Amino acid sequence: MNIIKHDTDRERRCGIPEVVLGERKSIENLLDVIKNFLDNSGRVIITRIGQKTTKAILDLLENDENFKEKYRTEYNSRGAALVIKSKDFVRQKTGYKIGILTAGTSDIRIAEEAKTILKELGCEAVVDYDVGVAGIHRLFPALEPMKDVSSVIVIAGMEGTLPGVVAGLVDVPVIGVPSSVGYGIGSGGRAALFTMLASCTPVAVVNIDNGYGAAVLAYQIARVKK
Amino acid sequence: MNIIKHDTDRERRCGIPEVVLGERKSIENLLDVIKNFLDNSGRVIITRIGQKTTKAILDLLENDENFKEKYRTEYNSRGAALVIKSKDFVRQKTGYKIGILTAGTSDIRIAEEAKTILKELGCEAVVDYDVGVAGIHRLFPALEPMKDVSSVIVIAGMEGTLPGVVAGLVDVPVIGVPSSVGYGIGSGGRAALFTMLASCTPVAVVNIDNGYGAAVLAYQIARVKK
Amino acid sequence: MNIIKHDTDRERRCGIPEVVLGERKSIENLLDVIKNFLDNSGRVIITRIGQKTTKAILDLLENDENFKEKYRTEYNSRGAALVIKSKDFVRQKTGYKIGILTAGTSDIRIAEEAKTILKELGCEAVVDYDVGVAGIHRLFPALEPMKDVSSVIVIAGMEGTLPGVVAGLVDVPVIGVPSSVGYGIGSGGRAALFTMLASCTPVAVVNIDNGYGAAVLAYQIARVKK
Amino acid sequence: MNIIKHDTDRERRCGIPEVVLGERKSIENLLDVIKNFLDNSGRVIITRIGQKTTKAILDLLENDENFKEKYRTEYNSRGAALVIKSKDFVRQKTGYKIGILTAGTSDIRIAEEAKTILKELGCEAVVDYDVGVAGIHRLFPALEPMKDVSSVIVIAGMEGTLPGVVAGLVDVPVIGVPSSVGYGIGSGGRAALFTMLASCTPVAVVNIDNGYGAAVLAYQIARVKK
Amino acid sequence: MNIIKHDTDRERRCGIPEVVLGERKSIENLLDVIKNFLDNSGRVIITRIGQKTTKAILDLLENDENFKEKYRTEYNSRGAALVIKSKDFVRQKTGYKIGILTAGTSDIRIAEEAKTILKELGCEAVVDYDVGVAGIHRLFPALEPMKDVSSVIVIAGMEGTLPGVVAGLVDVPVIGVPSSVGYGIGSGGRAALFTMLASCTPVAVVNIDNGYGAAVLAYQIARVKK
Amino acid sequence: MNIIKHDTDRERRCGIPEVVLGERKSIENLLDVIKNFLDNSGRVIITRIGQKTTKAILDLLENDENFKEKYRTEYNSRGAALVIKSKDFVRQKTGYKIGILTAGTSDIRIAEEAKTILKELGCEAVVDYDVGVAGIHRLFPALEPMKDVSSVIVIAGMEGTLPGVVAGLVDVPVIGVPSSVGYGIGSGGRAALFTMLASCTPVAVVNIDNGYGAAVLAYQIARVKK
Amino acid sequence: MNIIKHDTDRERRCGIPEVVLGERKSIENLLDVIKNFLDNSGRVIITRIGQKTTKAILDLLENDENFKEKYRTEYNSRGAALVIKSKDFVRQKTGYKIGILTAGTSDIRIAEEAKTILKELGCEAVVDYDVGVAGIHRLFPALEPMKDVSSVIVIAGMEGTLPGVVAGLVDVPVIGVPSSVGYGIGSGGRAALFTMLASCTPVAVVNIDNGYGAAVLAYQIARVKK
Amino acid sequence: MNIIKHDTDRERRCGIPEVVLGERKSIENLLDVIKNFLDNSGRVIITRIGQKTTKAILDLLENDENFKEKYRTEYNSRGAALVIKSKDFVRQKTGYKIGILTAGTSDIRIAEEAKTILKELGCEAVVDYDVGVAGIHRLFPALEPMKDVSSVIVIAGMEGTLPGVVAGLVDVPVIGVPSSVGYGIGSGGRAALFTMLASCTPVAVVNIDNGYGAAVLAYQIARVKK
Repeated sequence: MNIIKHDTDRERRCGIPEVVLGERKSIENLLDVIKNFLDNSGRVIITRIGQKTTKAILDLLENDENFKEKYRTEYNSRGAALVIKSKDFVRQKTGYKIGILTAGTSDIRIAEEAKTILKELGCEAVVDYDVGVAGIHRLFPALEPMKDVSSVIVIAGMEGTLPGVVAGLVDVPVIGVPSSVGYGIGSGGRAALFTMLASCTPVAVVNIDNGYGAAVLAYQIARVKK
Repeated sequence: MNIIKHDTDRERRCGIPEVVLGERKSIENLLDVIKNFLDNSGRVIITRIGQKTTKAILDLLENDENFKEKYRTEYNSRGAALVIKSKDFVRQKTGYKIGILTAGTSDIRIAEEAKTILKELGCEAVVDYDVGVAGIHRLFPALEPMKDVSSVIVIAGMEGTLPGVVAGLVDVPVIGVPSSVGYGIGSGGRAALFTMLASCTPVAVVNIDNGYGAAVLAYQIARVKK
Repeated sequence: MNIIKHDTDRERRCGIPEVVLGERKSIENLLDVIKNFLDNSGRVIITRIGQKTTKAILDLLENDENFKEKYRTEYNSRGAALVIKSKDFVRQKTGYKIGILTAGTSDIRIAEEAKTILKELGCEAVVDYDVGVAGIHRLFPALEPMKDVSSVIVIAGMEGTLPGVVAGLVDVPVIGVPSSVGYGIGSGGRAALFTMLASCTPVAVVNIDNGYGAAVLAYQIARVKK
Repeated sequence: MNIIKHDTDRERRCGIPEVVLGERKSIENLLDVIKNFLDNSGRVIITRIGQKTTKAILDLLENDENFKEKYRTEYNSRGAALVIKSKDFVRQKTGYKIGILTAGTSDIRIAEEAKTILKELGCEAVVDYDVGVAGIHRLFPALEPMKDVSSVIVIAGMEGTLPGVVAGLVDVPVIGVPSSVGYGIGSGGRAALFTMLASCTPVAVVNIDNGYGAAVLAYQIARVKK
Repeated sequence: MNIIKHDTDRERRCGIPEVVLGERKSIENLLDVIKNFLDNSGRVIITRIGQKTTKAILDLLENDENFKEKYRTEYNSRGAALVIKSKDFVRQKTGYKIGILTAGTSDIRIAEEAKTILKELGCEAVVDYDVGVAGIHRLFPALEPMKDVSSVIVIAGMEGTLPGVVAGLVDVPVIGVPSSVGYGIGSGGRAALFTMLASCTPVAVVNIDNGYGAAVLAYQIARVKK
Repeated sequence: MNIIKHDTDRERRCGIPEVVLGERKSIENLLDVIKNFLDNSGRVIITRIGQKTTKAILDLLENDENFKEKYRTEYNSRGAALVIKSKDFVRQKTGYKIGILTAGTSDIRIAEEAKTILKELGCEAVVDYDVGVAGIHRLFPALEPMKDVSSVIVIAGMEGTLPGVVAGLVDVPVIGVPSSVGYGIGSGGRAALFTMLASCTPVAVVNIDNGYGAAVLAYQIARVKK
Repeated sequence: MNIIKHDTDRERRCGIPEVVLGERKSIENLLDVIKNFLDNSGRVIITRIGQKTTKAILDLLENDENFKEKYRTEYNSRGAALVIKSKDFVRQKTGYKIGILTAGTSDIRIAEEAKTILKELGCEAVVDYDVGVAGIHRLFPALEPMKDVSSVIVIAGMEGTLPGVVAGLVDVPVIGVPSSVGYGIGSGGRAALFTMLASCTPVAVVNIDNGYGAAVLAYQIARVKK
Repeated sequence: MNIIKHDTDRERRCGIPEVVLGERKSIENLLDVIKNFLDNSGRVIITRIGQKTTKAILDLLENDENFKEKYRTEYNSRGAALVIKSKDFVRQKTGYKIGILTAGTSDIRIAEEAKTILKELGCEAVVDYDVGVAGIHRLFPALEPMKDVSSVIVIAGMEGTLPGVVAGLVDVPVIGVPSSVGYGIGSGGRAALFTMLASCTPVAVVNIDNGYGAAVLAYQIARVKK
């Protein structure tokens, strides 16, 4: 029984390549998925895969001469995402620029997931990590190089204030990503999520830790017909 | 003591006029706010004001000859929003088109709030209410006239499925607004909110019943520099 | 002290064999349970037992010549369920057909639990896994071979939309099983559970991850007197 | 703008007539809905409408000679549901029998909603209200006359134990409806809902106070092809 | 039976006069309490009493010549607090100055409660209401006149960001009071509460709407021995 | 159809007379219940009935000469409970003594419910209301007259500390009743409930506002066979 | 610095020996506690200690000749509790008998904790484990030998129905202990807790998994003065 | 890319040195942070770092001769905090005294975090751990040596009663820190948090386990200008 259904039509319909959620999938299952995707579209993007699983898969694949001849791998050392492509896969450049900010260093894993997706969608990410809120003066220089982005992805855990503050300072849409990093009442990301939703200055909120969703929304915003 | 601080600078900074939340404000308080705004910017937009308070305020204002000479009022019969403008206030047309869909007839109040804000921002709203999910075939004709919108605002209560379904069918950003309409586990809007956040196809989510925020995001998306 | 009370009467009363919850039971405890059940009814069904415990138990039992002579084992490689029967145990065929659908590949463990129970109840399961919602067009071919089932079990995590969508397309009862797979607001299965309960099109909902309960309900529905 | 979309196709597709949720709809809105439904299918069923609104609508309609000539009304004194039909509307009898039990007298409103829907679907309801759990001996005589029902709808508030207890005693599917009646930890129906979901003996659970959904499921179970 | 126990000793022990919670007390009950307190300490402070109850009580008392001869009343037009004192009651001046800020005009009721308590404790309140967060530039002029306060009470509803922002700008303790004003995920004050607790810059948080507690803490901070 | 099933057997089985929950029952429904109980056992006890409903029922009954000849009524001015008995009903005295304490004056309604039930069970209640926790020194004199009670019922809202404190001071069982009185995080009684459950010194906890349950437990404890 | 304060006075005041919570304490810390208690009262009772920690401590102590000469140890193989006593410690017999029931075999760890505490308090426990609710007929024989107990401790996880059912059948107090065993909506014990609190038949509820608290309450109930 | 932004200005602005949250940071990341801080301010304070990570970092650093020549390390054996300073770093003494109390021995880790921060801020901590609430008489001797502190930090898990009790006995501000230690309804610290917030006697509450925030608030209170 073949249980993986690659939605090749989706890319045509929505313009977004399907992405595989690595979490809670076994290595065997992931290898099947990789093969299936590479055969169908020449590229596979796996998020939330973890450093250990990434390493195990790469060890297996890169010892396979056949594989190495045809494909190349790109991965993120923080385990945020793994991308495998046939050597002749060409990524269309879009010219879109998108900003990514994080409130703390622990949110970077989510930021890197967003960045990888944006790259695969042909966009350029302008990033600045750890701008915090405790020292709001750190925010202004971080926004400087983002003058011509079409939107800003802002990732924050604990009390999740940063996206609302940024939204009060810029004139492009702000996409808020609550991060599950934190402790006490801030653990798991719910406090950050609720803050972003209740923000006086409108923020486009996505699920906790959902770097992928933020990237896709940013891409959709950038390509809005003009 | 003057306790209302009209943020006139905000319009310049973010391009979005400040909007007054009518809920839990007394009629006296609202009349002060109205005067303050009209003096400063020639327009005041009040949301979540309710039919009874709207009527009371209009009764007071429209019996005042001075007022009637200088200002005109626009309001929504469902109590979604009240707009008062000096007669010479000119609304810039932007040419932006934005779609608005609701899952049920009870969600229309939120939709009308979004529509009023969009209108005041110079945008055109293409609306279709009560497309449901129980009969998904009703969705396709509703999307037809939205072919050239820059985003779609989708409002849904109870289980809040509609935004995710729409997001799987269109290539522009979908802004999901959970509605507090519903009963049992669906009352208050949390079930709808969580569904939209957890949706497989990315949705830009705003607070429960937040038609205003959805409109502002839609406007920001439409004007993204090209 | 004998602390396991095999409810042999239950099978007669409700027509459903008692099933053992493997979770949080020690191997010693499970071996006692297995012996007790095999002595009383010639069959034991253990769910939520995990691959490691399953393996440990099978290693012990299959090295026992006495055991191997009298009993045979059936288990699911995903650890969903373990069935042990005396060699002369005969499973009555009922001729009932039941559909099983999952939204994602991670929900398959729950589906396999339901499938094992249905098999032990003498039913045939028509399965299709990973039909998703992001690509709703994948749903129609999956429903094709289910034309003569008496109900459909639909398993979905994250936002749990699939059961409600299926219920709008078929005329048999849909049994919704929320799956705990997911992250952020979707982790633990509550978002999926609430979506299924609040669904506009009625769904018969069972506990998160409860493949067993779904199978029993499907069986009860199929055998309704005519 | 016509904002009510009567899903006439749904009846054909799923065999279930569309039902209108009366809650939070204005009298004007409901009159539009009624007209629309009567014109299209000759019948309208409105649930969760309340005694006051029912009375207001009946007062208006029954003073209209035209209306009285063509239509007849049926309503429930507890405000559970209002049914209006053209005089020549013929309800198909199905011969299906379904049981309805409530734990307390306060749950009867929900039971009556289910009963009205079942009647409109051509089914017969065998009811027994207030069987409690405090005195479990009251349960057995209540189950006596339900010997040939195809399923039992069990409605319970507070701790919601009754459906699980009934499910341990009968061999047909039990549909559990948590009721929002109760106080303290039992108010709003969540405690009852969680009890039914976590029940050891499988129960098909629907949303809190959802008599309509329970009735539709019971009907779907009864008509399962044989 | 005398059921009110005036804790006269408390004032001596902790230096804080006992305050009566007016909410859910009948007018009869409140009149008993007032008499009891005036007899024992010459002053009674009632919070959360509401405009209607305040008016009813004042109407009764001020028509009583005996009462008017001996006592004077002070109340807040927003129903935040009612104070009654014997004419010879002398409030000690402490010379302490405390700042009070609110994020929105709807939070003023809580601010006024805090201000009344501070006044009765002999402190001076420096207040600025409606400084918002959407326009953070409004915050700096509001902080100017607070240069010599010993702490700042900051009241905010919805997402409750303001206290954390203020705490990053001043060097005195910030006392955060979540306000129950808001809608959707921000209603009831939990989102604001969690934001303040999870704030990166430490905030001393009190219960939702607890203007009284904030005032007492501010007073205790001001009088810390030096 | 007779829908009220008086569980006359219960009194024999558990020794506790059945009690009617007045809340959400119509006056008509309550009159039926009263008649049914008086005919069967000569006494009816109705809790959570409210002052308005109590008054309406008493007005009806006491204008009925037949009724007045045969029955007498006892009710609590706070609407906590209504008791109606035939004139020849004799309440057995048990000699049991039980203590009742409340933390605040707003908790008295619950205390009076418990007291009425205890009286009907033939017990004597030793009560002291408003002992607070803010002034723990008020507790000791309140406990003095409770030296020979068999248990203490302690009712507290807000943070619900009192039962745990009392349990550390006495050697009889303490029954904790969380009260729904309070505001902010303390509203609805959950904070008080969780405090009592998590108390280091064991407390027997019942549902929020459940004075009836506390009284029955106290009675069961008092009559434990010796 | 000596940080352990043995509350020797407590035993005198409340008649209950202090018990040590083993959870999250290091082995070093526990050895200090043990020494402190043995020196002061000749006995130490440690609950929630786990099998691994118990073994580590026993290995250390039983290799110490000095220790073995003076003390003896009693522990529960399920890690429920560890008791160490000087050899001449004499446990007073009280003659009290208390019943303990569990709904499932996974709840036995909690039951054993209660049983150990009761034994140390000089009581006799009459136990029956795994009586379930799915088969209520298993309950009656389990209650037979409990005819002369002074209360019944009933432990149940998942939906926690058993204590309420037992309370409807016996005339002594029932102490309900929710167990954290379960999955989905039943995991962590909240569903069981809420069921017990909302039970129609009064149950004395303690914290989730709190076998200790249940035992102390049962003891306090048994010794109520007569 | 340099992603760590040391907020050197913050110390000047608020008088509080920035502190690093060790949790979920890799050893490599922490070494970068340490270097960055030592270069900029001569001191780094890391909280919530854990014993294992602390040990790994110290092993690396102390084997580095260069490091040992210039810096000295101070750490807490419970993993509460790690401080590294250049040998010539001089900590200003403030003369401020602050009290720290814990309810149980498991809360000491949080207390030690607060104590380390206070020490680095030049304050003296007067500590007493394990004063409990079960035996309130243990509290009075613990408060004795705290007569001249400017505030008391009180840490409590489970039901979190202690801060409110202390606040009723002292005349300085009490800072309540809920601790995540506990089980059942008390696990994770929410019950303790809600108790402290709802306390009748005002308590300044910080996030669960937030020893750092409590220390900073205590320091800010102590230095209030006089």
